[in-house]
Amino acid sequence: MRQDTYFNGTFGYRAELSVPLSDRSLYFGDAVYDAAIGKNGKIFLCQEHIERLYRSAEKIGISPRVGKEELFRVLCDMTKECMTPFFLYFQFSRDGKNIRTHAYPDDAGCNLLILRDPLAAPVYDEPISLITAEDLRYFYCDVKTVNLLPAVLASKRAALAGAEETVLHRGSRVTECAHSNISILKDGVLITHPLDCRILAGISREHLLAAAARLGIPVRERAFTLRELFAADEILVTSASKICRRASRLDGKPVAMRDGTRATLLCDAMFDEWDSDTAS
Amino acid sequence: MRQDTYFNGTFGYRAELSVPLSDRSLYFGDAVYDAAIGKNGKIFLCQEHIERLYRSAEKIGISPRVGKEELFRVLCDMTKECMTPFFLYFQFSRDGKNIRTHAYPDDAGCNLLILRDPLAAPVYDEPISLITAEDLRYFYCDVKTVNLLPAVLASKRAALAGAEETVLHRGSRVTECAHSNISILKDGVLITHPLDCRILAGISREHLLAAAARLGIPVRERAFTLRELFAADEILVTSASKICRRASRLDGKPVAMRDGTRATLLCDAMFDEWDSDTAS
Repeated sequence: MRQDTYFNGTFGYRAELSVPLSDRSLYFGDAVYDAAIGKNGKIFLCQEHIERLYRSAEKIGISPRVGKEELFRVLCDMTKECMTPFFLYFQFSRDGKNIRTHAYPDDAGCNLLILRDPLAAPVYDEPISLITAEDLRYFYCDVKTVNLLPAVLASKRAALAGAEETVLHRGSRVTECAHSNISILKDGVLITHPLDCRILAGISREHLLAAAARLGIPVRERAFTLRELFAADEILVTSASKICRRASRLDGKPVAMRDGTRATLLCDAMFDEWDSDTAS
Repeated sequence: MRQDTYFNGTFGYRAELSVPLSDRSLYFGDAVYDAAIGKNGKIFLCQEHIERLYRSAEKIGISPRVGKEELFRVLCDMTKECMTPFFLYFQFSRDGKNIRTHAYPDDAGCNLLILRDPLAAPVYDEPISLITAEDLRYFYCDVKTVNLLPAVLASKRAALAGAEETVLHRGSRVTECAHSNISILKDGVLITHPLDCRILAGISREHLLAAAARLGIPVRERAFTLRELFAADEILVTSASKICRRASRLDGKPVAMRDGTRATLLCDAMFDEWDSDTAS
Protein backbone atom coordinates (compact mmCIF):
# COMPACT_ATOMS: atom_id res chain seq x y z
CA MET A 1 0.00 0.00 0.00
CA ARG A 2 1.15 3.45 -0.90
CA GLN A 3 2.22 5.88 1.83
CA ASP A 4 -0.65 7.20 3.93
CA THR A 5 0.62 10.68 4.82
CA TYR A 6 1.65 13.80 2.95
CA PHE A 7 3.05 17.11 4.19
CA ASN A 8 4.01 20.01 1.93
CA GLY A 9 5.13 17.90 -1.01
CA THR A 10 6.56 14.92 0.87
CA PHE A 11 4.84 11.52 0.93
CA GLY A 12 5.54 9.23 3.85
CA TYR A 13 4.16 7.02 6.57
CA ARG A 14 2.50 8.47 9.65
CA ALA A 15 5.43 8.13 12.02
CA GLU A 16 7.99 9.40 9.51
CA LEU A 17 6.52 12.85 9.01
CA SER A 18 5.96 15.63 11.52
CA VAL A 19 4.77 19.22 11.66
CA PRO A 20 7.16 22.15 12.18
CA LEU A 21 6.74 24.39 15.21
CA SER A 22 5.95 27.32 12.92
CA ASP A 23 2.55 25.74 12.15
CA ARG A 24 -0.18 27.80 13.79
CA SER A 25 -2.62 24.89 14.06
CA LEU A 26 -0.56 23.97 17.14
CA TYR A 27 -1.15 27.22 19.04
CA PHE A 28 -4.29 28.78 17.61
CA GLY A 29 -6.25 26.10 15.78
CA ASP A 30 -5.41 28.29 12.79
CA ALA A 31 -6.26 25.70 10.15
CA VAL A 32 -9.12 24.50 7.98
CA TYR A 33 -9.72 21.01 6.74
CA ASP A 34 -12.05 18.79 4.83
CA ALA A 35 -12.50 15.05 4.69
CA ALA A 36 -13.97 12.60 2.23
CA ILE A 37 -14.38 8.86 1.96
CA GLY A 38 -13.87 6.54 -0.95
CA LYS A 39 -13.27 3.04 -2.23
CA ASN A 40 -12.10 1.29 -5.42
CA GLY A 41 -9.56 4.03 -5.94
CA LYS A 42 -12.30 6.69 -6.15
CA ILE A 43 -12.93 9.61 -3.82
CA PHE A 44 -16.62 10.22 -3.18
CA LEU A 45 -17.74 13.79 -4.02
CA CYS A 46 -14.13 14.90 -4.09
CA GLN A 47 -14.67 18.15 -6.01
CA GLU A 48 -17.33 19.31 -3.54
CA HIS A 49 -15.00 18.70 -0.59
CA ILE A 50 -12.16 20.54 -2.34
CA GLU A 51 -14.43 23.49 -3.11
CA ARG A 52 -15.56 23.67 0.52
CA LEU A 53 -11.96 23.52 1.78
CA TYR A 54 -11.02 26.55 -0.32
CA ARG A 55 -14.15 28.39 0.83
CA SER A 56 -13.18 27.67 4.46
CA ALA A 57 -9.64 28.91 3.83
CA GLU A 58 -10.92 32.10 2.23
CA LYS A 59 -13.25 32.81 5.15
CA ILE A 60 -10.35 32.99 7.60
CA GLY A 61 -7.83 34.54 5.23
CA ILE A 62 -5.62 31.51 4.60
CA SER A 63 -4.03 31.59 1.14
CA PRO A 64 -3.26 28.06 -0.09
CA ARG A 65 -0.05 27.66 -2.03
CA VAL A 66 -1.47 24.85 -4.15
CA GLY A 67 -4.37 25.18 -6.54
CA LYS A 68 -7.49 23.03 -6.59
CA GLU A 69 -6.32 20.92 -9.54
CA GLU A 70 -2.99 20.20 -7.89
CA LEU A 71 -4.69 19.23 -4.63
CA PHE A 72 -7.02 16.96 -6.56
CA ARG A 73 -4.06 15.27 -8.26
CA VAL A 74 -2.30 14.65 -4.94
CA LEU A 75 -5.49 13.29 -3.34
CA CYS A 76 -6.01 10.95 -6.30
CA ASP A 77 -2.38 9.90 -6.15
CA MET A 78 -2.78 8.93 -2.50
CA THR A 79 -5.91 6.85 -3.05
CA LYS A 80 -5.83 5.39 -6.56
CA GLU A 81 -4.59 2.03 -5.30
CA CYS A 82 -7.03 1.85 -2.35
CA MET A 83 -9.76 -0.63 -3.13
CA THR A 84 -11.18 -1.04 0.36
CA PRO A 85 -13.01 1.91 2.01
CA PHE A 86 -10.76 4.75 3.10
CA PHE A 87 -11.03 8.06 4.94
CA LEU A 88 -9.13 10.97 3.44
CA TYR A 89 -8.33 14.06 5.53
CA PHE A 90 -6.77 17.22 4.09
CA GLN A 91 -5.86 20.37 5.92
CA PHE A 92 -4.50 23.84 5.19
CA SER A 93 -2.84 25.41 8.21
CA ARG A 94 -1.40 28.88 8.52
CA ASP A 95 2.35 28.95 9.01
CA GLY A 96 3.43 31.77 11.28
CA LYS A 97 7.18 31.68 10.65
CA ASN A 98 7.86 31.01 14.32
CA ILE A 99 6.39 34.27 15.58
CA ARG A 100 3.60 33.37 17.99
CA THR A 101 1.32 36.39 17.82
CA HIS A 102 -2.44 36.21 17.63
CA ALA A 103 -2.51 38.54 14.62
CA TYR A 104 -0.87 36.45 11.91
CA PRO A 105 1.83 37.99 9.72
CA ASP A 106 0.69 39.31 6.35
CA ASP A 107 3.16 37.03 4.64
CA ALA A 108 2.09 33.93 6.58
CA GLY A 109 2.66 30.66 4.78
CA CYS A 110 0.29 27.75 4.31
CA ASN A 111 1.01 24.09 5.00
CA LEU A 112 -0.84 21.20 3.41
CA LEU A 113 -1.29 18.00 5.39
CA ILE A 114 -3.06 14.93 4.04
CA LEU A 115 -3.86 11.74 5.93
CA ARG A 116 -5.39 8.56 4.56
CA ASP A 117 -6.82 5.98 6.94
CA PRO A 118 -8.72 2.73 6.51
CA LEU A 119 -12.46 3.16 7.05
CA ALA A 120 -15.07 0.74 8.27
CA ALA A 121 -17.55 0.68 5.37
CA PRO A 122 -20.49 3.04 6.02
CA VAL A 123 -23.34 1.11 7.61
CA TYR A 124 -26.64 1.31 5.84
CA ASP A 125 -29.49 -0.04 7.89
CA GLU A 126 -28.58 0.00 11.56
CA PRO A 127 -30.22 2.89 13.45
CA ILE A 128 -27.99 4.81 15.82
CA SER A 129 -28.32 6.19 19.36
CA LEU A 130 -27.95 9.88 20.14
CA ILE A 131 -27.56 11.98 23.25
CA THR A 132 -28.25 15.71 23.59
CA ALA A 133 -26.08 18.50 24.97
CA GLU A 134 -26.02 22.28 25.04
CA ASP A 135 -24.21 23.70 22.00
CA LEU A 136 -21.28 25.62 23.53
CA ARG A 137 -19.42 26.15 20.28
CA TYR A 138 -18.38 29.37 18.60
CA PHE A 139 -20.31 31.18 15.87
CA TYR A 140 -18.01 30.14 13.04
CA CYS A 141 -19.59 26.71 12.63
CA ASP A 142 -20.00 27.39 8.90
CA VAL A 143 -16.19 27.30 8.58
CA LYS A 144 -14.58 23.87 8.83
CA THR A 145 -11.73 24.76 11.17
CA VAL A 146 -9.85 22.61 13.68
CA ASN A 147 -11.28 24.61 16.63
CA LEU A 148 -13.08 21.41 17.52
CA LEU A 149 -12.64 21.01 21.24
CA PRO A 150 -16.35 21.42 22.09
CA ALA A 151 -17.11 18.75 19.46
CA VAL A 152 -14.40 16.54 20.97
CA LEU A 153 -15.89 16.83 24.46
CA ALA A 154 -19.43 16.28 23.18
CA SER A 155 -18.27 13.22 21.20
CA LYS A 156 -16.48 11.78 24.20
CA ARG A 157 -19.69 12.11 26.22
CA ALA A 158 -21.57 10.24 23.50
CA ALA A 159 -18.96 7.48 23.46
CA LEU A 160 -19.09 7.13 27.25
CA ALA A 161 -22.90 6.92 27.04
CA GLY A 162 -22.70 4.23 24.36
CA ALA A 163 -24.19 6.56 21.74
CA GLU A 164 -22.90 7.36 18.26
CA GLU A 165 -23.43 11.11 18.24
CA THR A 166 -24.36 14.12 20.35
CA VAL A 167 -27.16 16.41 19.18
CA LEU A 168 -26.29 20.01 20.03
CA HIS A 169 -28.88 22.65 20.88
CA ARG A 170 -28.59 26.35 21.67
CA GLY A 171 -31.30 26.63 24.28
CA SER A 172 -34.24 24.78 22.74
CA ARG A 173 -32.99 25.25 19.16
CA VAL A 174 -31.37 22.14 17.65
CA THR A 175 -28.40 23.07 15.46
CA GLU A 176 -26.46 19.99 14.36
CA CYS A 177 -24.50 17.11 15.89
CA ALA A 178 -20.91 17.16 17.12
CA HIS A 179 -19.66 16.02 13.72
CA SER A 180 -22.79 15.52 11.60
CA ASN A 181 -25.84 17.42 10.43
CA ILE A 182 -29.26 16.40 11.67
CA SER A 183 -32.65 16.52 9.95
CA ILE A 184 -36.10 15.28 10.91
CA LEU A 185 -39.11 13.99 9.04
CA LYS A 186 -42.46 15.15 10.42
CA ASP A 187 -45.77 14.59 8.67
CA GLY A 188 -43.95 13.81 5.44
CA VAL A 189 -41.81 16.99 5.48
CA LEU A 190 -38.02 17.00 5.81
CA ILE A 191 -36.91 19.74 8.24
CA THR A 192 -33.32 20.84 8.76
CA HIS A 193 -31.51 23.85 10.23
CA PRO A 194 -30.89 26.62 7.67
CA LEU A 195 -27.37 27.50 6.60
CA ASP A 196 -25.85 30.13 8.86
CA CYS A 197 -22.94 30.50 11.29
CA ARG A 198 -24.44 27.87 13.64
CA ILE A 199 -23.97 24.83 11.38
CA LEU A 200 -21.63 23.43 8.77
CA ALA A 201 -22.94 23.37 5.21
CA GLY A 202 -22.68 19.60 5.08
CA ILE A 203 -22.17 18.05 1.67
CA SER A 204 -24.22 15.02 2.71
CA ARG A 205 -26.88 17.43 4.02
CA GLU A 206 -26.97 19.06 0.56
CA HIS A 207 -27.28 15.68 -1.13
CA LEU A 208 -30.04 14.68 1.30
CA LEU A 209 -32.03 17.79 0.38
CA ALA A 210 -31.44 17.12 -3.33
CA ALA A 211 -32.63 13.53 -2.88
CA ALA A 212 -35.76 14.76 -1.10
CA ALA A 213 -36.48 17.13 -3.99
CA ARG A 214 -36.09 14.30 -6.52
CA LEU A 215 -38.38 12.07 -4.43
CA GLY A 216 -41.05 14.74 -4.07
CA ILE A 217 -40.53 15.05 -0.30
CA PRO A 218 -41.08 18.70 0.73
CA VAL A 219 -38.13 20.35 2.48
CA ARG A 220 -38.22 23.12 5.10
CA GLU A 221 -34.89 24.71 5.99
CA ARG A 222 -35.77 26.07 9.42
CA ALA A 223 -34.57 25.54 12.97
CA PHE A 224 -36.50 22.93 14.94
CA THR A 225 -36.71 22.49 18.71
CA LEU A 226 -35.64 19.72 21.06
CA ARG A 227 -39.34 19.01 21.59
CA GLU A 228 -39.81 18.59 17.83
CA LEU A 229 -36.77 16.32 17.73
CA PHE A 230 -38.22 14.01 20.39
CA ALA A 231 -41.57 14.00 18.53
CA ALA A 232 -40.11 13.50 15.03
CA ASP A 233 -41.34 10.69 12.79
CA GLU A 234 -37.76 10.08 11.69
CA ILE A 235 -34.35 11.46 12.62
CA LEU A 236 -31.66 11.42 9.93
CA VAL A 237 -28.01 12.06 10.73
CA THR A 238 -25.74 12.85 7.79
CA SER A 239 -21.99 13.25 7.44
CA ALA A 240 -19.25 12.47 4.96
CA SER A 241 -18.19 9.29 6.74
CA LYS A 242 -21.62 8.05 7.88
CA ILE A 243 -23.43 9.19 4.68
CA CYS A 244 -26.96 8.92 6.17
CA ARG A 245 -28.19 7.12 9.28
CA ARG A 246 -31.58 6.87 10.94
CA ALA A 247 -31.62 7.35 14.71
CA SER A 248 -33.82 5.30 17.01
CA ARG A 249 -32.73 6.37 20.50
CA LEU A 250 -32.27 9.80 22.06
CA ASP A 251 -30.93 10.21 25.59
CA GLY A 252 -31.71 6.55 26.17
CA LYS A 253 -35.35 6.77 25.06
CA PRO A 254 -36.83 5.18 21.91
CA VAL A 255 -37.67 7.86 19.32
CA ALA A 256 -38.61 8.27 15.66
CA MET A 257 -38.69 5.17 13.37
CA ARG A 258 -42.26 5.99 12.34
CA ASP A 259 -41.89 6.89 8.67
CA GLY A 260 -39.78 4.05 7.38
CA THR A 261 -40.96 4.48 3.81
CA ARG A 262 -39.62 8.01 3.36
CA ALA A 263 -36.54 7.40 5.54
CA THR A 264 -35.62 4.37 3.49
CA LEU A 265 -36.15 6.18 0.20
CA LEU A 266 -33.80 8.96 1.37
CA CYS A 267 -31.14 6.61 2.74
CA ASP A 268 -31.35 4.47 -0.40
CA ALA A 269 -30.79 7.53 -2.57
CA MET A 270 -27.73 8.54 -0.55
CA PHE A 271 -26.16 5.07 -0.54
CA ASP A 272 -26.97 4.55 -4.23
CA GLU A 273 -24.85 7.61 -5.01
CA TRP A 274 -22.00 6.27 -2.88
CA ASP A 275 -22.16 2.87 -4.55
CA SER A 276 -22.46 4.11 -8.11
CA ASP A 277 -19.84 6.87 -7.80
CA THR A 278 -17.29 4.50 -6.27
CA ALA A 279 -18.10 1.34 -8.23
CA SER A 280 -15.10 -0.74 -9.27
CA MET B 1 21.91 31.40 24.94
CA ARG B 2 20.35 28.14 25.94
CA GLN B 3 17.99 26.33 23.58
CA ASP B 4 14.58 27.98 23.22
CA THR B 5 12.35 24.97 22.60
CA TYR B 6 11.42 21.79 24.45
CA PHE B 7 9.24 18.87 23.42
CA ASN B 8 8.60 15.82 25.59
CA GLY B 9 11.98 15.78 27.28
CA THR B 10 14.11 17.07 24.42
CA PHE B 11 15.64 20.56 24.39
CA GLY B 12 16.46 22.14 21.06
CA TYR B 13 16.18 25.13 18.79
CA ARG B 14 12.90 26.03 17.09
CA ALA B 15 13.71 24.59 13.68
CA GLU B 16 15.23 21.38 15.06
CA LEU B 17 12.15 20.09 16.83
CA SER B 18 8.75 19.20 15.44
CA VAL B 19 5.44 17.75 16.54
CA PRO B 20 4.35 14.20 15.67
CA LEU B 21 1.20 13.66 13.62
CA SER B 22 -0.38 11.86 16.57
CA ASP B 23 -0.72 15.22 18.38
CA ARG B 24 -4.39 16.19 18.52
CA SER B 25 -3.69 19.92 18.72
CA LEU B 26 -3.23 19.65 14.94
CA TYR B 27 -6.72 18.35 14.18
CA PHE B 28 -8.92 19.32 17.10
CA GLY B 29 -7.23 22.14 19.02
CA ASP B 30 -7.11 19.47 21.72
CA ALA B 31 -4.54 21.26 23.88
CA VAL B 32 -4.29 23.69 26.77
CA TYR B 33 -1.52 26.16 27.43
CA ASP B 34 -0.33 28.92 29.65
CA ALA B 35 2.21 31.67 29.20
CA ALA B 36 4.27 33.85 31.50
CA ILE B 37 6.90 36.53 31.16
CA GLY B 38 10.11 37.07 33.03
CA LYS B 39 13.54 38.66 33.20
CA ASN B 40 16.78 38.29 35.15
CA GLY B 41 16.35 34.53 35.09
CA LYS B 42 13.05 34.75 36.97
CA ILE B 43 9.59 33.79 35.78
CA PHE B 44 6.90 36.23 36.93
CA LEU B 45 4.05 34.54 38.87
CA CYS B 46 5.20 31.16 37.61
CA GLN B 47 3.36 29.03 40.17
CA GLU B 48 0.05 30.71 39.39
CA HIS B 49 0.47 30.03 35.68
CA ILE B 50 1.40 26.40 36.37
CA GLU B 51 -1.65 25.96 38.61
CA ARG B 52 -3.92 27.41 35.94
CA LEU B 53 -2.42 25.14 33.27
CA TYR B 54 -3.23 22.05 35.33
CA ARG B 55 -6.74 23.35 36.01
CA SER B 56 -7.25 23.87 32.26
CA ALA B 57 -5.99 20.35 31.56
CA GLU B 58 -8.32 18.86 34.15
CA LYS B 59 -11.34 20.70 32.73
CA ILE B 60 -10.96 18.97 29.36
CA GLY B 61 -9.73 15.63 30.68
CA ILE B 62 -6.07 15.87 29.68
CA SER B 63 -3.80 13.94 32.07
CA PRO B 64 -0.29 15.46 32.11
CA ARG B 65 2.54 12.97 32.37
CA VAL B 66 4.74 15.40 34.27
CA GLY B 67 3.97 16.82 37.69
CA LYS B 68 3.89 20.49 38.63
CA GLU B 69 7.32 20.41 40.30
CA GLU B 70 8.92 18.79 37.29
CA LEU B 71 7.31 21.33 34.94
CA PHE B 72 8.56 24.14 37.17
CA ARG B 73 12.08 22.71 37.07
CA VAL B 74 12.06 22.53 33.26
CA LEU B 75 10.67 26.05 32.92
CA CYS B 76 13.37 27.36 35.28
CA ASP B 77 15.98 25.41 33.39
CA MET B 78 14.93 27.09 30.15
CA THR B 79 15.02 30.62 31.54
CA LYS B 80 17.62 30.79 34.30
CA GLU B 81 20.20 32.33 31.97
CA CYS B 82 17.78 34.82 30.40
CA MET B 83 18.45 38.28 31.76
CA THR B 84 16.49 40.31 29.19
CA PRO B 85 12.68 40.06 29.13
CA PHE B 86 11.33 36.80 27.76
CA PHE B 87 7.99 35.20 26.94
CA LEU B 88 7.53 31.61 28.04
CA TYR B 89 4.81 29.43 26.48
CA PHE B 90 3.97 25.94 27.74
CA GLN B 91 1.36 23.59 26.36
CA PHE B 92 -0.12 20.19 27.14
CA SER B 93 -1.68 18.56 24.09
CA ARG B 94 -3.56 15.30 23.90
CA ASP B 95 -1.82 12.62 21.88
CA GLY B 96 -4.28 10.44 19.98
CA LYS B 97 -1.93 7.65 18.93
CA ASN B 98 -2.65 8.31 15.28
CA ILE B 99 -6.35 7.52 15.45
CA ARG B 100 -8.23 10.64 14.34
CA THR B 101 -11.58 10.28 16.07
CA HIS B 102 -13.36 13.12 17.80
CA ALA B 103 -13.82 11.04 20.96
CA TYR B 104 -10.27 10.67 22.23
CA PRO B 105 -9.00 7.23 23.30
CA ASP B 106 -9.14 6.52 27.05
CA ASP B 107 -5.42 5.87 27.04
CA ALA B 108 -4.57 9.07 25.15
CA GLY B 109 -1.10 10.42 25.82
CA CYS B 110 -0.05 13.96 26.64
CA ASN B 111 2.70 15.96 24.98
CA LEU B 112 4.51 18.88 26.61
CA LEU B 113 5.75 21.70 24.40
CA ILE B 114 7.62 24.73 25.73
CA LEU B 115 8.71 27.78 23.75
CA ARG B 116 10.80 30.69 24.96
CA ASP B 117 10.91 33.89 22.96
CA PRO B 118 12.43 37.30 23.49
CA LEU B 119 9.90 39.87 24.69
CA ALA B 120 9.75 43.62 24.24
CA ALA B 121 9.72 44.87 27.85
CA PRO B 122 6.14 45.60 29.01
CA VAL B 123 5.35 49.27 28.43
CA TYR B 124 4.20 51.18 31.44
CA ASP B 125 2.82 54.56 30.55
CA GLU B 126 1.68 54.60 26.95
CA PRO B 127 -2.11 54.30 26.58
CA ILE B 128 -3.34 51.91 23.92
CA SER B 129 -6.03 51.96 21.22
CA LEU B 130 -8.85 49.44 21.14
CA ILE B 131 -11.51 48.42 18.66
CA THR B 132 -14.75 46.56 19.41
CA ALA B 133 -16.20 43.43 17.84
CA GLU B 134 -18.97 40.93 18.53
CA ASP B 135 -17.74 38.07 20.71
CA LEU B 136 -18.23 35.00 18.51
CA ARG B 137 -16.22 32.62 20.69
CA TYR B 138 -17.31 29.43 22.37
CA PHE B 139 -18.49 29.11 25.97
CA TYR B 140 -15.29 27.52 27.26
CA CYS B 141 -13.46 30.84 27.60
CA ASP B 142 -12.58 29.92 31.19
CA VAL B 143 -10.35 27.14 29.83
CA LYS B 144 -7.10 28.26 28.23
CA THR B 145 -7.22 26.08 25.13
CA VAL B 146 -5.73 26.62 21.69
CA ASN B 147 -9.20 26.95 20.11
CA LEU B 148 -8.21 30.55 19.44
CA LEU B 149 -9.27 31.24 15.88
CA PRO B 150 -11.92 33.85 16.82
CA ALA B 151 -9.26 35.61 18.91
CA VAL B 152 -6.84 35.38 15.98
CA LEU B 153 -9.33 36.99 13.60
CA ALA B 154 -10.27 39.68 16.13
CA SER B 155 -6.59 40.42 16.75
CA LYS B 156 -5.85 40.67 13.05
CA ARG B 157 -8.69 43.20 12.71
CA ALA B 158 -7.14 45.25 15.53
CA ALA B 159 -3.72 45.14 13.89
CA LEU B 160 -5.17 46.21 10.54
CA ALA B 161 -6.94 49.10 12.30
CA GLY B 162 -3.71 50.17 14.03
CA ALA B 163 -5.12 49.20 17.45
CA GLU B 164 -3.52 47.02 20.11
CA GLU B 165 -6.53 44.96 21.13
CA THR B 166 -10.12 44.10 20.29
CA VAL B 167 -12.79 44.42 22.97
CA LEU B 168 -15.31 41.61 22.58
CA HIS B 169 -18.98 41.94 23.47
CA ARG B 170 -21.87 39.47 23.41
CA GLY B 171 -24.64 41.79 22.31
CA SER B 172 -24.19 44.85 24.55
CA ARG B 173 -22.34 42.88 27.27
CA VAL B 174 -18.59 43.43 27.27
CA THR B 175 -16.73 40.21 28.13
CA GLU B 176 -12.97 40.59 27.64
CA CYS B 177 -10.48 41.35 24.87
CA ALA B 178 -9.11 38.94 22.27
CA HIS B 179 -6.15 38.09 24.51
CA SER B 180 -6.56 40.27 27.61
CA ASN B 181 -9.09 41.01 30.33
CA ILE B 182 -10.70 44.43 30.49
CA SER B 183 -11.87 46.48 33.46
CA ILE B 184 -13.21 50.00 33.84
CA LEU B 185 -13.08 52.66 36.52
CA LYS B 186 -16.30 54.62 36.97
CA ASP B 187 -16.93 57.05 39.81
CA GLY B 188 -14.01 55.57 41.72
CA VAL B 189 -15.20 51.95 41.40
CA LEU B 190 -13.32 49.23 39.50
CA ILE B 191 -15.76 47.13 37.45
CA THR B 192 -14.87 43.90 35.68
CA HIS B 193 -16.73 40.91 34.21
CA PRO B 194 -17.32 38.14 36.77
CA LEU B 195 -15.62 34.76 36.38
CA ASP B 196 -17.70 32.41 34.27
CA CYS B 197 -17.44 30.55 30.97
CA ARG B 198 -17.34 33.84 29.02
CA ILE B 199 -13.90 35.01 30.18
CA LEU B 200 -10.52 33.69 31.21
CA ALA B 201 -9.65 33.95 34.88
CA GLY B 202 -6.70 36.21 34.13
CA ILE B 203 -3.84 36.14 36.61
CA SER B 204 -3.18 39.83 35.94
CA ARG B 205 -6.91 40.47 36.42
CA GLU B 206 -6.68 38.76 39.83
CA HIS B 207 -3.67 40.84 40.77
CA LEU B 208 -5.44 44.01 39.61
CA LEU B 209 -8.38 43.24 41.90
CA ALA B 210 -5.99 42.50 44.78
CA ALA B 211 -4.19 45.80 44.17
CA ALA B 212 -7.52 47.64 44.18
CA ALA B 213 -8.42 46.05 47.50
CA ARG B 214 -5.07 47.08 49.00
CA LEU B 215 -5.55 50.63 47.70
CA GLY B 216 -9.09 50.91 49.04
CA ILE B 217 -10.64 51.09 45.56
CA PRO B 218 -14.03 49.32 45.61
CA VAL B 219 -14.40 46.44 43.15
CA ARG B 220 -17.58 45.23 41.44
CA GLU B 221 -17.35 41.95 39.56
CA ARG B 222 -20.27 42.41 37.20
CA ALA B 223 -20.77 42.60 33.46
CA PHE B 224 -20.73 46.11 32.01
CA THR B 225 -22.11 47.31 28.70
CA LEU B 226 -20.54 48.82 25.62
CA ARG B 227 -22.22 52.09 26.56
CA GLU B 228 -20.55 51.96 30.00
CA LEU B 229 -17.23 51.19 28.32
CA PHE B 230 -17.46 54.29 26.13
CA ALA B 231 -18.45 56.37 29.20
CA ALA B 232 -15.81 54.92 31.55
CA ASP B 233 -13.48 57.21 33.49
CA GLU B 234 -10.64 54.78 32.80
CA ILE B 235 -10.23 51.56 30.81
CA LEU B 236 -7.61 49.07 32.02
CA VAL B 237 -6.46 46.15 29.89
CA THR B 238 -4.57 43.39 31.68
CA SER B 239 -2.71 40.32 30.46
CA ALA B 240 0.38 38.32 31.33
CA SER B 241 2.51 39.99 28.67
CA LYS B 242 1.08 43.53 28.88
CA ILE B 243 0.64 43.45 32.70
CA CYS B 244 -1.67 46.52 32.83
CA ARG B 245 -2.34 49.21 30.23
CA ARG B 246 -4.66 52.19 30.17
CA ALA B 247 -6.65 52.67 26.97
CA SER B 248 -7.32 56.07 25.46
CA ARG B 249 -9.01 55.28 22.14
CA LEU B 250 -11.93 53.04 21.27
CA ASP B 251 -13.03 52.51 17.67
CA GLY B 252 -11.02 55.58 16.75
CA LYS B 253 -12.64 57.87 19.32
CA PRO B 254 -10.93 59.34 22.41
CA VAL B 255 -12.22 57.68 25.59
CA ALA B 256 -11.46 57.38 29.30
CA MET B 257 -8.27 58.99 30.74
CA ARG B 258 -10.35 60.85 33.32
CA ASP B 259 -9.24 59.23 36.58
CA GLY B 260 -5.48 59.29 36.26
CA THR B 261 -4.92 59.15 40.01
CA ARG B 262 -6.57 55.78 40.53
CA ALA B 263 -5.42 54.37 37.17
CA THR B 264 -1.83 55.27 37.97
CA LEU B 265 -2.05 53.79 41.46
CA LEU B 266 -3.31 50.52 39.99
CA CYS B 267 -0.76 50.37 37.16
CA ASP B 268 2.02 51.28 39.60
CA ALA B 269 1.01 48.45 41.89
CA MET B 270 1.08 45.96 39.01
CA PHE B 271 4.42 47.07 37.62
CA ASP B 272 5.95 47.26 41.11
CA GLU B 273 5.18 43.56 41.51
CA TRP B 274 6.79 42.79 38.15
CA ASP B 275 9.88 44.79 39.01
CA SER B 276 10.33 43.46 42.53
CA ASP B 277 9.59 39.81 41.67
CA THR B 278 12.04 39.82 38.77
CA ALA B 279 14.74 42.06 40.19
CA SER B 280 18.29 41.01 39.41
